[in-house]
Amino acid sequence: MEDKQFCYKYPHPAVTTDCVIFGFDGSNLKILLIQRGIEPYKGKWALPGGFLKPDESAETGALRELKEETGLESAYIEQFHTYSTPDRDPRERVITISFLALVKLQDVKGGDDAADACWSSVHEVPQLAFDHDVILRDALARLRERIHFYPIGYDLLPEKFTMKELQTLYESVLGVRFDRANFAKKMLHLDILIQLDETVWPTPKREAKLYKFNLVKYKELKQRGFRLEF
Amino acid sequence: MEDKQFCYKYPHPAVTTDCVIFGFDGSNLKILLIQRGIEPYKGKWALPGGFLKPDESAETGALRELKEETGLESAYIEQFHTYSTPDRDPRERVITISFLALVKLQDVKGGDDAADACWSSVHEVPQLAFDHDVILRDALARLRERIHFYPIGYDLLPEKFTMKELQTLYESVLGVRFDRANFAKKMLHLDILIQLDETVWPTPKREAKLYKFNLVKYKELKQRGFRLEF
Repeated sequence: MEDKQFCYKYPHPAVTTDCVIFGFDGSNLKILLIQRGIEPYKGKWALPGGFLKPDESAETGALRELKEETGLESAYIEQFHTYSTPDRDPRERVITISFLALVKLQDVKGGDDAADACWSSVHEVPQLAFDHDVILRDALARLRERIHFYPIGYDLLPEKFTMKELQTLYESVLGVRFDRANFAKKMLHLDILIQLDETVWPTPKREAKLYKFNLVKYKELKQRGFRLEF
Repeated sequence: MEDKQFCYKYPHPAVTTDCVIFGFDGSNLKILLIQRGIEPYKGKWALPGGFLKPDESAETGALRELKEETGLESAYIEQFHTYSTPDRDPRERVITISFLALVKLQDVKGGDDAADACWSSVHEVPQLAFDHDVILRDALARLRERIHFYPIGYDLLPEKFTMKELQTLYESVLGVRFDRANFAKKMLHLDILIQLDETVWPTPKREAKLYKFNLVKYKELKQRGFRLEF
């Protein structure tokens, strides 16, 4: 059987998409990692990703990867950087177009490829295959930039949440601690939260109000851009 | 003579870099355009760019293009997006990694490729080849995002400049008009300008102070990030 070949007059690189898929479990910011089943870096953990198909844009390829790994048809995704150092893959020249995605963990269904997948806290990520450590670092930097302008909680939190959960999310992303009263004041001042009549009891002694996002105001604010100063 | 060929088991796209090179002539924000000498889009204007060489990263390729077109060895460059719609080039599948660059027009020396080059005001750009209209629009959006956080004047203005020139630059990028006194007050408040003992006479009736950037404070501010609210 003859192998089909694709030939060009000049060298062409292979092109992949890689996805840094962020989720939040109420305590920690997490990313999805896949254990590689083949060489190179067999057994090492890596970001989910794969070769771009001939009829796919990078965005379509990233959404396909997201679906394969999480079962999700859609999510907030954003292209953030393309990595092209000539020797970043030992097999051949591979250029990777990288995306970050924000998902609600409770909506994730293990996808087709999820056998060797795990959600790792961003602060406990092992050394990754290829240059994925750098890609993860850059994705985190982009997320920290975004958090000042977009209420990322809408994409990462369940529909109803406590102010404490929202605060913990911001603290996990930014790697700092906030004063509880100040944080709540700033968030309420943005006027994008609706306080519900429901409460929960996070501990037997403490009752906590539940909030949800006001989608209309959220979209207005997102379009206008804003800066959350902490 | 046999043509050398490069063959792969799977289809590989061609990869280019395109550069949106911004300059400022004292009145208008300009970009460098190149008139295409070959098909497709022969005779049409396009962004400078070209195929990535096998041993180049995208950043190295973009700097090579910049040097060829402007004679400049270095400049502020930033990768901002990769365009990958499958049919964006009628010849074959071409993915382009796009950069924006900021140059001082008085330092530009016509490069090797500059025969059919021109600096066009960003508000008077003709319809461009390929999807370069979209690339230009996105580059402008990124520059407008950047202007709130980086004193881009350092990269675009001559060493010594008047407050009016700085204001005109900000107005050209943002497409708005500022109150003269307010603009000067905000800029001086950032503490990144040094007022020189020299003056110029932009009109016979008006003497204007000259300023230059305080590089140390500029770098501190750039590292910290800041937001200029207009």
